[in-house]
Amino acid sequence: MNLLDSLFRSAAVDAAFSDRATLQGMLDFEAALARAESRAGVMPAEAAAAIAAQCKAELFDHAALAQGAARAGNLAIPLVKQLTTLVAAENKEAARFVHWGATSQDAVDTGRVLQLRKALELLAGDLNGLVESLATLAEQHRATLIAGRTWMQHALPTTLGVKIAAWLDALLRHRQRLEETGNRCLVLQFGGAVGTLAALGSSGPEVAKALAAELMLGLPRLAWHSNRDRITEIGATLGLLAGTVGKIARDLALHMQTEVAEIFEPAEEGRGGSSTMPHKRNPVSCAVMLGAALRVPALVAGLLAAMMQEDERSLGGWHAEWEALPEVVQLTAGALHHLATIVPKLEIDVERMKKNLDLTDGLIYAEAVSMALAEKMTRAEAHEIVQSACVRVVRERRNLRDALSADPRITGLLSAAELDRLFDPRKYLGAAEEYVRGVVAASRSALSERSA
Amino acid sequence: MNLLDSLFRSAAVDAAFSDRATLQGMLDFEAALARAESRAGVMPAEAAAAIAAQCKAELFDHAALAQGAARAGNLAIPLVKQLTTLVAAENKEAARFVHWGATSQDAVDTGRVLQLRKALELLAGDLNGLVESLATLAEQHRATLIAGRTWMQHALPTTLGVKIAAWLDALLRHRQRLEETGNRCLVLQFGGAVGTLAALGSSGPEVAKALAAELMLGLPRLAWHSNRDRITEIGATLGLLAGTVGKIARDLALHMQTEVAEIFEPAEEGRGGSSTMPHKRNPVSCAVMLGAALRVPALVAGLLAAMMQEDERSLGGWHAEWEALPEVVQLTAGALHHLATIVPKLEIDVERMKKNLDLTDGLIYAEAVSMALAEKMTRAEAHEIVQSACVRVVRERRNLRDALSADPRITGLLSAAELDRLFDPRKYLGAAEEYVRGVVAASRSALSERSA
Amino acid sequence: MNLLDSLFRSAAVDAAFSDRATLQGMLDFEAALARAESRAGVMPAEAAAAIAAQCKAELFDHAALAQGAARAGNLAIPLVKQLTTLVAAENKEAARFVHWGATSQDAVDTGRVLQLRKALELLAGDLNGLVESLATLAEQHRATLIAGRTWMQHALPTTLGVKIAAWLDALLRHRQRLEETGNRCLVLQFGGAVGTLAALGSSGPEVAKALAAELMLGLPRLAWHSNRDRITEIGATLGLLAGTVGKIARDLALHMQTEVAEIFEPAEEGRGGSSTMPHKRNPVSCAVMLGAALRVPALVAGLLAAMMQEDERSLGGWHAEWEALPEVVQLTAGALHHLATIVPKLEIDVERMKKNLDLTDGLIYAEAVSMALAEKMTRAEAHEIVQSACVRVVRERRNLRDALSADPRITGLLSAAELDRLFDPRKYLGAAEEYVRGVVAASRSALSERSA
Amino acid sequence: MNLLDSLFRSAAVDAAFSDRATLQGMLDFEAALARAESRAGVMPAEAAAAIAAQCKAELFDHAALAQGAARAGNLAIPLVKQLTTLVAAENKEAARFVHWGATSQDAVDTGRVLQLRKALELLAGDLNGLVESLATLAEQHRATLIAGRTWMQHALPTTLGVKIAAWLDALLRHRQRLEETGNRCLVLQFGGAVGTLAALGSSGPEVAKALAAELMLGLPRLAWHSNRDRITEIGATLGLLAGTVGKIARDLALHMQTEVAEIFEPAEEGRGGSSTMPHKRNPVSCAVMLGAALRVPALVAGLLAAMMQEDERSLGGWHAEWEALPEVVQLTAGALHHLATIVPKLEIDVERMKKNLDLTDGLIYAEAVSMALAEKMTRAEAHEIVQSACVRVVRERRNLRDALSADPRITGLLSAAELDRLFDPRKYLGAAEEYVRGVVAASRSALSERSA
Repeated sequence: MNLLDSLFRSAAVDAAFSDRATLQGMLDFEAALARAESRAGVMPAEAAAAIAAQCKAELFDHAALAQGAARAGNLAIPLVKQLTTLVAAENKEAARFVHWGATSQDAVDTGRVLQLRKALELLAGDLNGLVESLATLAEQHRATLIAGRTWMQHALPTTLGVKIAAWLDALLRHRQRLEETGNRCLVLQFGGAVGTLAALGSSGPEVAKALAAELMLGLPRLAWHSNRDRITEIGATLGLLAGTVGKIARDLALHMQTEVAEIFEPAEEGRGGSSTMPHKRNPVSCAVMLGAALRVPALVAGLLAAMMQEDERSLGGWHAEWEALPEVVQLTAGALHHLATIVPKLEIDVERMKKNLDLTDGLIYAEAVSMALAEKMTRAEAHEIVQSACVRVVRERRNLRDALSADPRITGLLSAAELDRLFDPRKYLGAAEEYVRGVVAASRSALSERSA
Repeated sequence: MNLLDSLFRSAAVDAAFSDRATLQGMLDFEAALARAESRAGVMPAEAAAAIAAQCKAELFDHAALAQGAARAGNLAIPLVKQLTTLVAAENKEAARFVHWGATSQDAVDTGRVLQLRKALELLAGDLNGLVESLATLAEQHRATLIAGRTWMQHALPTTLGVKIAAWLDALLRHRQRLEETGNRCLVLQFGGAVGTLAALGSSGPEVAKALAAELMLGLPRLAWHSNRDRITEIGATLGLLAGTVGKIARDLALHMQTEVAEIFEPAEEGRGGSSTMPHKRNPVSCAVMLGAALRVPALVAGLLAAMMQEDERSLGGWHAEWEALPEVVQLTAGALHHLATIVPKLEIDVERMKKNLDLTDGLIYAEAVSMALAEKMTRAEAHEIVQSACVRVVRERRNLRDALSADPRITGLLSAAELDRLFDPRKYLGAAEEYVRGVVAASRSALSERSA
Repeated sequence: MNLLDSLFRSAAVDAAFSDRATLQGMLDFEAALARAESRAGVMPAEAAAAIAAQCKAELFDHAALAQGAARAGNLAIPLVKQLTTLVAAENKEAARFVHWGATSQDAVDTGRVLQLRKALELLAGDLNGLVESLATLAEQHRATLIAGRTWMQHALPTTLGVKIAAWLDALLRHRQRLEETGNRCLVLQFGGAVGTLAALGSSGPEVAKALAAELMLGLPRLAWHSNRDRITEIGATLGLLAGTVGKIARDLALHMQTEVAEIFEPAEEGRGGSSTMPHKRNPVSCAVMLGAALRVPALVAGLLAAMMQEDERSLGGWHAEWEALPEVVQLTAGALHHLATIVPKLEIDVERMKKNLDLTDGLIYAEAVSMALAEKMTRAEAHEIVQSACVRVVRERRNLRDALSADPRITGLLSAAELDRLFDPRKYLGAAEEYVRGVVAASRSALSERSA
Repeated sequence: MNLLDSLFRSAAVDAAFSDRATLQGMLDFEAALARAESRAGVMPAEAAAAIAAQCKAELFDHAALAQGAARAGNLAIPLVKQLTTLVAAENKEAARFVHWGATSQDAVDTGRVLQLRKALELLAGDLNGLVESLATLAEQHRATLIAGRTWMQHALPTTLGVKIAAWLDALLRHRQRLEETGNRCLVLQFGGAVGTLAALGSSGPEVAKALAAELMLGLPRLAWHSNRDRITEIGATLGLLAGTVGKIARDLALHMQTEVAEIFEPAEEGRGGSSTMPHKRNPVSCAVMLGAALRVPALVAGLLAAMMQEDERSLGGWHAEWEALPEVVQLTAGALHHLATIVPKLEIDVERMKKNLDLTDGLIYAEAVSMALAEKMTRAEAHEIVQSACVRVVRERRNLRDALSADPRITGLLSAAELDRLFDPRKYLGAAEEYVRGVVAASRSALSERSA
């Protein structure tokens, strides 16, 4: 993260991946390990207490750690060395037991899992808030007319509520995915040098169990030093979420175009200005969300490509995750945070949406007419009659309603009243309102389960 | 797929994505739609029967379809046209009802979901077979000694069983993921032009329900034409599986190296030869698995990047999925099939594994010695004493056991018998066998749930 | 490629990667090898003639080749076997010399290079055609007013010519890149089993030189079996081109929106219809171009990730290229072909472009006013005065010109005539026409060099 | 970058992308703009001097900039605001001219280009050093025997010199690519709000020319705000380089395996240790290089995917580059720096290489024997005879030389002396030494051109 990029991030999630948080995650592992080993009789309780007392990030020399990590190839090695020195200064005997039976990757991975747990909790908060505000919005606009667009062209009328409900429905699936992924993947890493906990003799599994309990993490069946499906699943699950946030942002950006002007990011002092154009009101949050949605897929691919990890601990594959996974989390969380922040404040121009329905001089009702005619001839014939009427309308810049009224093939089949009905968007919304109600109800129920 | 690539694929899964299967998937949608609409009173039963009778891929002109699709931008348009003609030839009245109320994407997406369901069933078969044979192998080699390797260097002894159990444990998670993904994602697509089923008036939801039942697919809350998290989740879940298959392949390839020679792909007539080197026995299946694991991540990224789909139907994003998702399925299924096929026939050289433990002249026992000394001094001091012994041993090409016996600092603390014990790999396996038993039991129980 | 995807491809480029073309590429290598070895005295001229006579793809049994390739791990092995049998049937003595001194990868890679050369020639044809038609279009619309849009919002007026010139300028760079890449990368692969041409004794380099001459390919300093920067550069260079085609397609799609309606893909019978909406005229070529631009980046990443190829020939990395590189070429060539085809037939609505300039009630002229005021106060003050006027204009739905005329702070500084001038888009185009002329001239000169 | 990742970076290149360097890059643009506009008569010389005097990163309030950038959506807006304030404090009149006629993206992009130029110069230094030391190494080991390995299996003997020469040859191509890319891509960005330099009236091109000269950057034909092939080409070119560095690292890691033990990263105090295993000497630089080669491809894909930038300035696409491109540069430069640092200090065990040739009991000479027999029968027959001998040798754990001596079919054709010759690796190296000499000469010549 740097100056140019600060707008992409959520400050809270960023803090979860700061250097300090990374250190503290590893130190939480070391402290919990000491306590667990004391519980299992591997070390005296006083030693555990002496070790735990030093497991505070602020006691460590960051510059020395960085230098040591660059030489050793991972951060745990200099960290354990500094921790041992700190403990020894207070209690020489206790220093013997620092990091007992563990390997570097145990500390690095478990520390990272603790950071991920924190970050995912924060992200879940934004996700729940977003579900709530989108549900409110969908309900409110259950029947608000808007042009349905396919291939970036007007298709049929639909309602803004349906559009929002479809986003919301996807977000409910993301909630479910995040829960499944969290349960499966946020687990302890603890195997010792090659995953057998050999250095702990027969006490390994007992210590592991106590350690997982200390950290309130799931206990895996065995270590996963080089089997990285868990770590990568977290990336993939967030990648899917980033994709949905990007989809919503794309829609917002399209609706905010000068020519469309239906939905706007909130206007705020200094927001989305230009260094040279005084009238500019740029969709800053869309830029962030789209930027994240463009970047995250590639980062997920990097994680997937890093899964071919050699033997009991990888050379390069493990290292490739260190920066990439936090980046996936930060970009996705940042984009989600932007979205959750702007949704309650979106400016929605319902009048303009209605007005835009008229842009095609009635072409947007072509399917309705065609389906009505298809009751009286084949669907293909009806399609062709209306299609040729549409071509004429465009060429002659007429209104479709007028063109049809002038066509004896049609007036014989559809009365003026029937035509009126077919050109009334409210009469051609199918199950729109029912769908919105269904998704809103599901959202409410999902959120209430949580709070229950 | 082509000549060069035929080795990458599983024939059965490939068949699920043949042009014929693609057509049949869409036609199954059209037939089921007719039946569902007849049940809902939208069309007469005879019309439905007449339509369903023509929904056979072999009745269609593929060349004309290809040409029509290229012009129209999707396959459903010429398909519906041909189907209408076929039905009309038998029953003009029925032809009116072909594709009634649906949109192209309904047919294309639901057809694709049907193909995916078939392919994932086939893949699940291979996965179950693999779990079974790996469980057998893990059990059999629960205590088989092998060098544990980290950073591609000898670390400590472990057992082949633990290595296999760690793979197996990942595969059990993949089974779970595939089930969750299948339940969430293999659902009906049916929304009409903009997702409201407007053309069906108030009958939309009833038809949708009947249609899902006809096809034995889940019924979503509303259409997902441009919210593609489901389709992309299938890719991501398979991407994770491909990564694990790649990890196993990487391990096998490393073990099969001329210098390591511990595990071999099965020898078969004509398998893995060379056009010029008569002695060659190349790991063909590893090439396929590694090749797939290199390619799939990028394809998953392509799917994720395509998620930013505009409005009610996308321009380009939807199209980008058409080839990419089948490719992910085919590559992953092909790689898995190779693995499932070779695992029961792997040639394992247990003697060589044991012999390789001696390659470092005892260095592989350094941690054991260090931990024993750490009972009598600080862990850091012990680490340093043994580390400097290791450096001497390498420089002087001696054996670590001998070097330690000659060091008075050590002989004072460890007796010859103790040293013997520390240099016995069987005495430094920690929880290895317990872990193997745990994973094997979990595998058995997972498989029996299925058959129950 | 399959039914669903036929629209993505250019038929000619597809043919360059057909199974038949793949075989013929390898056979061209084998024939040329025989001739080169005959020239170098390694085999008799009659043997070379007898071998070359059988190097015709139509003589080979494709099904047997596919089966053999799947077992052996590459296509060269069964190909050489069949070729030897074919030659032996005519001339037993000659059969001895088939594939003499070469390795499988020599045939596979050189064959692929020959296919790539053909495909890149075809692509260059489309690229030149596109440069020509865009140059014509840019010139024609050098002064055609259009709203310049930034962040998907109206910014300032510009000309359609400038927009096209910027695309064109990028395409000129792509021509240059393709030429550099072709020269560097389309070279012979010939090294024998490990790149030393050991089987040819001291004749290796002489044979290699003759072979390169036979095939009219560049002669590299040594074999590049596992150093794949050349093959991957081809992918990367095309990836850049696909990105530019995607950028142009994005612009076209935005301009073709119902609300913008400035530029349209050509209307043709059956083009871009809908299975249910009679009025639809979907931008089919944009879908193809955007689809390609979404997929190609990931495929390029796959190629880059496959570069870590082991030792003298890779396990998996090489295999990962086989399908991915042709896919990059086919998708890029197909997208470019679509673009080259539609550009000369684009429907451009100059009137609508002009009309759209008025959509913001004058806000699009805000920078012009601000810069004029900045001559008389600080740029920051001017920016602020105009910015607050813009806010009022939006709130009160007034015209900026009117609002400014009513503001005494401004009327004191700018006369009505000056204001008129500032609200005339033709007076605020800077170097637009000069830029267009420069790029058009560069295009003409680039194309004439070629034909010279 | 953070604690965990510091080992991945080259400090010098990192500094080129620090926040301070980012600011200074943009300020260098603003200062040069003022000077250029003064030269062109757009502003007085004193104003230009007053502006340039404040263009020092240390004068700016970074926290305020970060906050402002997050609101505005880019860093240029708050930067220009602060700069204006700073200038006004000294010279109110001059403040009017700050950023005159430019747009935010002009400053951001040109600043970034200046940073890239610096970073690429540093990288080129490492690349030249690496070419030099690899050339020395290749020459020194021109004839050093080593097993050539294909598919991770022993194939034929080759020389270490050939292996290194193949790396070196790739690096020479990378030098060429970097030069071409630098010339094409490191150019000025300057177009004003929509690329027409409208705010400068007719002076735009003259100012642009002077500005490019001030910054010693190439002058493009027109602005490239949303045509990003240049920026992405830099990423792609570095991606190719990262792939080659990864290939070399893969080879080194394989050679450094405990079982192979032919080449080693330099041993240094504290380098590559383990937190628990005292004997460990992990290949830290390989981990960094492989990690980078795993991550960079995905980042390049992200850049390619971001190329579909809308109209005159993109929403999201531009933003997606900001972090991704520096990351590509930093990771590639860091990996290259590691490689350049270790190559001169690699420990090479020539004896072990020779010894490893014997691991297959002579199978590595199978092709040599087969080619010798092929002089007396068909190549296919020879291949089969030797192949079946190889199978017997493996099964019966014999030596191939002995097995062949005992086969009357062979002794009739090859004398003992001939067999001796065939089992002498020095006699089967083909053009190895010639190739090494060729590549070394090309390296020397490339480097001397530079210094000339």
